[in-house]
Amino acid sequence: MEKSPLQQARVAYKPQLPNVLTGTAVKVVEGEATQSAGDQEDIKKLFPNTYGLPEIVFEKSSDAAPSKPVNVGVILSGGQAPGGHNVISGLFDGIKAINKDSRLYGFLMGPGGLVDHNYKELTSDIIDEYRNTGGFDIIGSGRTKLETKEQFDKGLEILRELGINALVIIGGDDSNTNAAILAEYYKAIGAGVQVIGVPKTIDGDLKNSVIETSFGFDTATKVYSEVIGNIQRDCNSAKKYWHFIKLMGRSASHIALECALKCQPNVCIISEEVEAKDMTLDQVVDEIADAVIKRAEKGKNYGVVLVPEGLIEFIPAVKRLIAELNDLLAAKADEFAAVAPKEQLAWISAHLSAANAATYASLPTGVARQLSLDRDPHGNVQVSLIETEKLLSEMVGKRLAQLKEEGKYNGKYSTMHHFFGYEGRCADPSNFDANYCYGLGYTAAMLIANGMTGYMSSLRNLTFAPVNWVAGGIPITMMMNMERRHGEMKPVIRKALVELDGAPFLKFVKMRETWKADDCYTYPGPIQYFGPAEVCDIPSLTLVYEQKRRKY
Amino acid sequence: MEKSPLQQARVAYKPQLPNVLTGTAVKVVEGEATQSAGDQEDIKKLFPNTYGLPEIVFEKSSDAAPSKPVNVGVILSGGQAPGGHNVISGLFDGIKAINKDSRLYGFLMGPGGLVDHNYKELTSDIIDEYRNTGGFDIIGSGRTKLETKEQFDKGLEILRELGINALVIIGGDDSNTNAAILAEYYKAIGAGVQVIGVPKTIDGDLKNSVIETSFGFDTATKVYSEVIGNIQRDCNSAKKYWHFIKLMGRSASHIALECALKCQPNVCIISEEVEAKDMTLDQVVDEIADAVIKRAEKGKNYGVVLVPEGLIEFIPAVKRLIAELNDLLAAKADEFAAVAPKEQLAWISAHLSAANAATYASLPTGVARQLSLDRDPHGNVQVSLIETEKLLSEMVGKRLAQLKEEGKYNGKYSTMHHFFGYEGRCADPSNFDANYCYGLGYTAAMLIANGMTGYMSSLRNLTFAPVNWVAGGIPITMMMNMERRHGEMKPVIRKALVELDGAPFLKFVKMRETWKADDCYTYPGPIQYFGPAEVCDIPSLTLVYEQKRRKY
Repeated sequence: MEKSPLQQARVAYKPQLPNVLTGTAVKVVEGEATQSAGDQEDIKKLFPNTYGLPEIVFEKSSDAAPSKPVNVGVILSGGQAPGGHNVISGLFDGIKAINKDSRLYGFLMGPGGLVDHNYKELTSDIIDEYRNTGGFDIIGSGRTKLETKEQFDKGLEILRELGINALVIIGGDDSNTNAAILAEYYKAIGAGVQVIGVPKTIDGDLKNSVIETSFGFDTATKVYSEVIGNIQRDCNSAKKYWHFIKLMGRSASHIALECALKCQPNVCIISEEVEAKDMTLDQVVDEIADAVIKRAEKGKNYGVVLVPEGLIEFIPAVKRLIAELNDLLAAKADEFAAVAPKEQLAWISAHLSAANAATYASLPTGVARQLSLDRDPHGNVQVSLIETEKLLSEMVGKRLAQLKEEGKYNGKYSTMHHFFGYEGRCADPSNFDANYCYGLGYTAAMLIANGMTGYMSSLRNLTFAPVNWVAGGIPITMMMNMERRHGEMKPVIRKALVELDGAPFLKFVKMRETWKADDCYTYPGPIQYFGPAEVCDIPSLTLVYEQKRRKY
Repeated sequence: MEKSPLQQARVAYKPQLPNVLTGTAVKVVEGEATQSAGDQEDIKKLFPNTYGLPEIVFEKSSDAAPSKPVNVGVILSGGQAPGGHNVISGLFDGIKAINKDSRLYGFLMGPGGLVDHNYKELTSDIIDEYRNTGGFDIIGSGRTKLETKEQFDKGLEILRELGINALVIIGGDDSNTNAAILAEYYKAIGAGVQVIGVPKTIDGDLKNSVIETSFGFDTATKVYSEVIGNIQRDCNSAKKYWHFIKLMGRSASHIALECALKCQPNVCIISEEVEAKDMTLDQVVDEIADAVIKRAEKGKNYGVVLVPEGLIEFIPAVKRLIAELNDLLAAKADEFAAVAPKEQLAWISAHLSAANAATYASLPTGVARQLSLDRDPHGNVQVSLIETEKLLSEMVGKRLAQLKEEGKYNGKYSTMHHFFGYEGRCADPSNFDANYCYGLGYTAAMLIANGMTGYMSSLRNLTFAPVNWVAGGIPITMMMNMERRHGEMKPVIRKALVELDGAPFLKFVKMRETWKADDCYTYPGPIQYFGPAEVCDIPSLTLVYEQKRRKY
């Protein structure tokens, strides 16, 4: 692998460990027994062996390190997030600190690697190639879900063959849910394999009262904010375009909100607010058009609008429409198949309820077509194909044209579109994520050494310097409740959406009218690794506002 | 203006001046009289007062600084490029070094500000707000062309009113051409206003034997390479997509080539090569399909393709088609207006020559429609609307489907699309561009102090440390030849295309088969400002290879 000058320089970076992890061993301090986030009785029944475990906090110890070597397997699950390689290097260093004969095996291309017995041993020469780098390419990732007894048993074969005592699963809410189920199963059958989860996702929706943030969110939002800031500066220099920027994150708007707090754009739509206010697509369009009009009155025919990728699925009217479309096209599949292509949209309109037909009629034809006709092999609407940024800019344009005819708007409206997602998922981790991930991996090793299973590796106090971070473990069942998935009630980790009474959103609400009317753009610039701490080491603003503590 | 932590930290950066500019004054060393790049007789006739001037090199002098204050006007012309603010701050510091009573006026929103008398004085408090920052927002930019006597005379009114002795025009090849014409005109009428050009454009196509690079190219390509590198790492981790990435730059492929040299993608199309080889669109598609097939045979169903924005206009067959379309639709406008929309494509096909009709038929319908029907108010084809990255990926997909039927390809082919342009034009300048721009502005001040007009500010030896850069001035007429523009022969600065026998392209050719088949991705990461010199201060690889000197 040919390395860029920055990569070569970053090899030398030593992630900062919490002070508690710098002794020869850790002392386990157990908290009270825990309860699940909801549906306690159901969860307890499903996890008889791992329910109610105490939260764990480590304290520094100068006892001798546990001397028995541990063999550990590690899996990267789901979408890439900056810092995954550092979780693995922290885990590696952690188990080597326990005993230099400990071994680490990586299962390849995600959970499928465990089931299919594809793995490689991760030795120090491999680990050293990947320290402080982005990507999941050290072992690859995948989206196979570990859910069935057959998978668990198949996995156990290779774990036994390799003498693996513990499995670390690095993933989002679903993967950690499955880690808990696997932990419970292996404990129940006395397999002798511990399972530890690590909270990963750039979306930022895996967090709760005990997990302050998921790794990758910090770096990804910094990359997006860099390019958003650059576009804002272009916007403010050329003064001729409205830029519509879609940002990754289908399930929650944390990314859009964080980027808005960092960049101060003219408009940022927050899906959770749209849903809570039961806004229609037309109302979202009106809100943006209002900004365009207000700025045009000041001679400013330019601006920046941030749109979360998942918006369309949060609009209650659209959600109701999609639900009825799914039912309709499933129930009348044969009848619909006989409809001539040109008549399809009209046929659908005629078969929808009045309210949903009205929503359907409000959509641009291309989008109506995508929503109703372009379906995936399972017959589902392919919402991710909808170019929401173009949909909105087009609808705003139509609204403005109408207002122009009525003499209520007299500006110019030219648009540009962007979508940022893949640009940030594999960036080199920021110092924050490099430290956080390394610490999470190292903590996972300590949880293993202390016999824990069904725990998520945890670092808290994250707005303080890493040396002060609190390391420990959180029972995964503590984050769970029961939710309906594919028609069945399942135990799942509750997804963290943007809280409309949370500090980050309230800060945004307080500022947004000012940002809308004036040019308050800020330009965060690229992630810096070597400069002053106030540039290089600041955590996300979401974390800062949520913690309501001193600025780092 | 609320500043990000990085902006606050960058305020303190002191751009490095060439040693020759650190004395109290400069000594002018004149070279031989110069000739224009071509059409010497014609250019000489058009520039009787400014033709044949000598190249100027400055030497360090400890003489007293010229004591007379100078009043200078500055204009940002055309698209944004990182470092414009540093040209202005270097110019400001330069004229203040000449005499602290010198004044700097910025004309607003481009050359139009001169004609319309929109300006503001740039005082030290304003300048200090913008040092080392991206964007052109200090005074804005615009695309008005300074071409007519009326504009020149109107401009002179405000220059006289403000007592301005010299005008600095920061722009691309066209703007510098117009700077030369303006210099000639003001000299001819004895206006007493010198005109100095500064070479700006991220496209990198304003360079020649005496101008090593234009400013902004370094920073913009670093930003694009950062996100391309991140996407490559994602590509190499998820192993499931072919990413088609279009890069800004319509007239030349320098940006795509530089990003390819930095990132080592699987495929990079260079428009100049396509043109030189008289390749058809189908041949370009075949070249990409070939990479997809070769990689699929190794089990690699993923990759990255870089495409220069201007590709479609470089394909000779498409160029011929566009030319005939333009003629046809102009000559038979009335007849065509009567054709029913559904019949338009067929009507066009029937009226084209056989060769062009074949090219037309090879295009996806949407593109054929864009090429022939979506015309700007002047009746021209709107090539910039064509999403070349999607056009290519779609055509490659069709080709692969055909090969699959023939049993010659058995891979998976899923695509993602990106276009990077606005993300880089207003980035905070790299250390290279911060230094280069500041030095260009400072040098412009020295050219003014020494009575030059019709010169372009010049810094050379750019792969060495800034302290060793050679400062001086190049007569703009030296870069000119006659070219047909809108049906008339005009004096213009010759645009620098990618040279197919130049070192950067040859390096690419040498490596591209390896890059195609294997995963040789490099990940440049974000621009760094504070770290080790080999990370922060390296110039573009294009410059490094062109200079064939030691690595900086």
